[in-house]
Amino acid sequence: MAISQQVFLRDAMRRLNLTRDVFAARIGVKRRALDTWLLPEGSQEARAMPEVVSRFVTEIVENSALMEKYAQSAQSGPLRDRIATNNKHQLLSVDQFTRESVEELFRVADLMQPIARRRKVSRVLEGAVLGNLFFEASTRTRVSFGAAFCRLGGSVCDTTGFTFSSMAKGESIYDTSRVMSGYVDAMVIRHPEKGSVAEFAAATNIPVVNGGDGAGEHPSQALLDLYTILTEFSRLGKLLDGAHIVMAGDLKYGRTVHSLIKLLSLYRGMKFTLVSPPGLEMPEYLLDQASRNGHVVEQTHDLAAGLKGADVVYATRVQKERFSGENLEGYTADFQVNKAIVDACCGPDTIVMHPLPRDSREGANDLGTDLNHDPRLAIFRQTDNGIPVRMAIFAVLMGVEGLVQHSLRDVTWSPPSHIGPDDSVFHGID
Amino acid sequence: MAISQQVFLRDAMRRLNLTRDVFAARIGVKRRALDTWLLPEGSQEARAMPEVVSRFVTEIVENSALMEKYAQSAQSGPLRDRIATNNKHQLLSVDQFTRESVEELFRVADLMQPIARRRKVSRVLEGAVLGNLFFEASTRTRVSFGAAFCRLGGSVCDTTGFTFSSMAKGESIYDTSRVMSGYVDAMVIRHPEKGSVAEFAAATNIPVVNGGDGAGEHPSQALLDLYTILTEFSRLGKLLDGAHIVMAGDLKYGRTVHSLIKLLSLYRGMKFTLVSPPGLEMPEYLLDQASRNGHVVEQTHDLAAGLKGADVVYATRVQKERFSGENLEGYTADFQVNKAIVDACCGPDTIVMHPLPRDSREGANDLGTDLNHDPRLAIFRQTDNGIPVRMAIFAVLMGVEGLVQHSLRDVTWSPPSHIGPDDSVFHGID
Amino acid sequence: MAISQQVFLRDAMRRLNLTRDVFAARIGVKRRALDTWLLPEGSQEARAMPEVVSRFVTEIVENSALMEKYAQSAQSGPLRDRIATNNKHQLLSVDQFTRESVEELFRVADLMQPIARRRKVSRVLEGAVLGNLFFEASTRTRVSFGAAFCRLGGSVCDTTGFTFSSMAKGESIYDTSRVMSGYVDAMVIRHPEKGSVAEFAAATNIPVVNGGDGAGEHPSQALLDLYTILTEFSRLGKLLDGAHIVMAGDLKYGRTVHSLIKLLSLYRGMKFTLVSPPGLEMPEYLLDQASRNGHVVEQTHDLAAGLKGADVVYATRVQKERFSGENLEGYTADFQVNKAIVDACCGPDTIVMHPLPRDSREGANDLGTDLNHDPRLAIFRQTDNGIPVRMAIFAVLMGVEGLVQHSLRDVTWSPPSHIGPDDSVFHGID
Repeated sequence: MAISQQVFLRDAMRRLNLTRDVFAARIGVKRRALDTWLLPEGSQEARAMPEVVSRFVTEIVENSALMEKYAQSAQSGPLRDRIATNNKHQLLSVDQFTRESVEELFRVADLMQPIARRRKVSRVLEGAVLGNLFFEASTRTRVSFGAAFCRLGGSVCDTTGFTFSSMAKGESIYDTSRVMSGYVDAMVIRHPEKGSVAEFAAATNIPVVNGGDGAGEHPSQALLDLYTILTEFSRLGKLLDGAHIVMAGDLKYGRTVHSLIKLLSLYRGMKFTLVSPPGLEMPEYLLDQASRNGHVVEQTHDLAAGLKGADVVYATRVQKERFSGENLEGYTADFQVNKAIVDACCGPDTIVMHPLPRDSREGANDLGTDLNHDPRLAIFRQTDNGIPVRMAIFAVLMGVEGLVQHSLRDVTWSPPSHIGPDDSVFHGID
Repeated sequence: MAISQQVFLRDAMRRLNLTRDVFAARIGVKRRALDTWLLPEGSQEARAMPEVVSRFVTEIVENSALMEKYAQSAQSGPLRDRIATNNKHQLLSVDQFTRESVEELFRVADLMQPIARRRKVSRVLEGAVLGNLFFEASTRTRVSFGAAFCRLGGSVCDTTGFTFSSMAKGESIYDTSRVMSGYVDAMVIRHPEKGSVAEFAAATNIPVVNGGDGAGEHPSQALLDLYTILTEFSRLGKLLDGAHIVMAGDLKYGRTVHSLIKLLSLYRGMKFTLVSPPGLEMPEYLLDQASRNGHVVEQTHDLAAGLKGADVVYATRVQKERFSGENLEGYTADFQVNKAIVDACCGPDTIVMHPLPRDSREGANDLGTDLNHDPRLAIFRQTDNGIPVRMAIFAVLMGVEGLVQHSLRDVTWSPPSHIGPDDSVFHGID
Repeated sequence: MAISQQVFLRDAMRRLNLTRDVFAARIGVKRRALDTWLLPEGSQEARAMPEVVSRFVTEIVENSALMEKYAQSAQSGPLRDRIATNNKHQLLSVDQFTRESVEELFRVADLMQPIARRRKVSRVLEGAVLGNLFFEASTRTRVSFGAAFCRLGGSVCDTTGFTFSSMAKGESIYDTSRVMSGYVDAMVIRHPEKGSVAEFAAATNIPVVNGGDGAGEHPSQALLDLYTILTEFSRLGKLLDGAHIVMAGDLKYGRTVHSLIKLLSLYRGMKFTLVSPPGLEMPEYLLDQASRNGHVVEQTHDLAAGLKGADVVYATRVQKERFSGENLEGYTADFQVNKAIVDACCGPDTIVMHPLPRDSREGANDLGTDLNHDPRLAIFRQTDNGIPVRMAIFAVLMGVEGLVQHSLRDVTWSPPSHIGPDDSVFHGID
């Protein structure tokens, strides 16, 4: 064929709107085989795809009836099967999503809003037990997952830190995971080492959610970020396709921006402006991936220049705990997104986001507190969205999303009309 | 006016039976303004109240119809509005209570007794999630709040210690509080620093309970102490008005006695005997406050002399972790409340209390274990009362106290007839 | 009488199938008195039993009508009364069980299987609160107990480590236990010191389960081990009476094998082969106890020789944290139970067990990972059985075992068909 097999296959998957997992399953090949066909030709593990696969895929993309049959569609079974990884109902990476499936997840999150807003309660997961396993402390994430599961009626067993004395005694991740799987119905796992959550997931067939694996992924954060952007845009009457997203700060180690740019790349005609101090730029492979899909990607070290015309400003914190010894000379308080620079460079409809926690001490370089009363600051709407998005993830992975609507009951207690002291009408809990 | 404005305003509030918060809200001034008018005239921040306020308050107190309209009464709306602080449904200090409102809270606690005694269950808070945030370890208090919330049907997300790694990364209390508020429906906060819980509470509109802020307050402890005294007196056919309360031990740093003496001062004609080693006396401002209301306050360093005629002996533990370097020479084991001294100085109806934990080691100076089988020792009845009182606090703050009665169902399991091995008929769980 | 009073009383208890507690209760003497009669004659505390007791017991064992009346039987009231210790519904030791009562517990565990297999849910303990008190970290055991309680509809308050700051301040176990008893409906206690759980249990009348007290007991582990053996034998069409059980590894400090051999000794005609490195042999008193009941007990240092003809191979981990300074020269990797030795010495129906965690690192000496795909490896079926067995323990101690059957509802979510990636048809979750 005229084009390389990598480009041929990538193009087919894109046009069919399928992940590698689903694509491999639909054409009847192993995921591992597909991976080797997609490797750069020079690499040692790369393999040529068999002629029959080439012909089959060609037939599909050239025949509109076959396209329809093989493409990802809302009619193709439960969402959890379509985002499955290794044929399991687990959420390990944002790579499991297409634009269609991520928006279907968000429709489930929308269903959860009356619960998240404390107007309704649901007991749809009554009797289910979540193992909320945090091998690295992260109270906010742990409580967010735990509260989301409780709000669906389930119970939560928590663990924080390496209190798994068993692992100190030489127990393998395989054993720990398999044993816990016998106790609980789903697991959220946070672990300081990249890849370890996938290892946990491989040892069980119960639903697993990656709650962050070191420098790896933290998919629920990227999902709630995207959900927030879509919700804010909907309020402002904007479309995400064609939007201008500015990411500022430590773009090298910040896994949240890595996952978010992947998800945003599922949309069309995006403009990404990446503002970072020298040495903390976004990794090449992510730039390639974003550019490949036809989006505009610009990089700069100048915050004011970068913010011009932004629809969304996504500020991040330097992940000091993830690296050391590198030169951070360029990373000064001049990098702080604050009221002065937002007023100077952005419009009234710009949205300012941050994955939190932010450093609120003087001289901090991520996000100033002087925007707290500014309606453009979306950080608390963003963190509030953690509840409906995580509820949606659990409901989908456990196959109860269709039962939520009819399970709703009125709340018995009297919730406050709004939860933040600075909330105004448009960004409160309802 | 002939009297100072401080005396004028205090008298008005006393006659109306209103806290500062409620008084300010009812006459339509800011709480902060009211505070400045109440400061001693010499102080820098003191302000004169406007003439219009003086006239308005004079009209109210001199006109019986207005008195009735503005005074605190059982008909004046939900209890949570009357004990509100900064117009929020939060419990930060015992100063939020009047005699009337504290007794109304206790009537709700009485409603909870069939649940606390394991005869009934309620699911009135089903779907609600408590954030039980203990930035300082206190297992008994944490479990007491958690179990109380569970017994109303709610779910609990716990955190212990500074596992809030986010705060170590420079996150402000404002951010932490606001983020958690998006996850949970109510928060209990324990923190080693005085004032920090109020800071948490300021950053949210959801119900917050102060679970102890260092040398500050621990209002639920004082409330369960007062509830215990009233319950015991009721059993003994005694009235609290006119009673003789002895507080013994470290009265300087023991926040429980500070809060308790404030609550007891809401009653009439009390006699307080304060027994402490030299240097650990009750602070002056509390002595003033108690005396100002017409109660008799006596101080002594002699335990035996102090115990004579006591209706209640409240022993405390020295808060060694709260101070250092001070001379504790006078604080010996002679200060221990034990069977010998109680037999010698007290009658058969004296009640012996302690906030627990007590030091049960030999040579300890707070409360001996030789009273364990003596019915006058009320410490376990006292700690058992933590459950109904904390249930009442949650029910009131969340506005479900009116639903409890009809939500009761019989317990399905077979609870023990009594829970302590030394319980006798009159002080068991029922 | 011709035989010693110890032999006389032991024989009577064995024939009546009664524990010391129940026997003492039925003939109307104190347990402590009975204990002194059973001591060896030379010992200082030994006492002669009164003539009237001797006559009474003689009448019972020689008269078949009386035998029937006094013997342990299924008709003799709730199971929790028959396994009671000190007249309390507490599980402190496997010594509380007879063969009959342990099998009755397992029939309750069988009732729990549809819940453990995620086909059904029950809310039979709704409103009940478990205090899951782990003074020593053991995540798997803590989560197993917690999940079991949740699956019955109850709520759980956890504590891990010595966060009981109160105990550091000199609080006694008596006070801690009595206070917690006022908050929760049942307690599981794990503590590093032998005997401490009994001390907790003595201070309360609520149900207590010993979750492991140092070198003492861990009865729920031994119960789930026995339940696993019976379940596996049932699948294989074998009877436990007359079976050949091999225990291998550190038999000196491994409390699980100590408790398990006691339970297995309740069956008939067992053959125990005890394989340990020199110096880590099973303690004498346990060998005596097993031999006394007519079982065959053999000891060896040769793993291959010991495994011959085994129905069950129970491997254990060396409890390095429980001892120090002893010579472990003989305890090499040759002691590892792995595929090679099992293939060489055992048959297709041999079951390989391990209390977990196992050491999966290279050179470990307990149990190899190369058996992971071998159906004879029962370790995950074994750990899965922790849920139904612990549910049964809670249900029995709280007196709801008769309500479980009718409380079952279909599960609302879609559980996986199996939970372990290597599960095959016969050993999955169902």
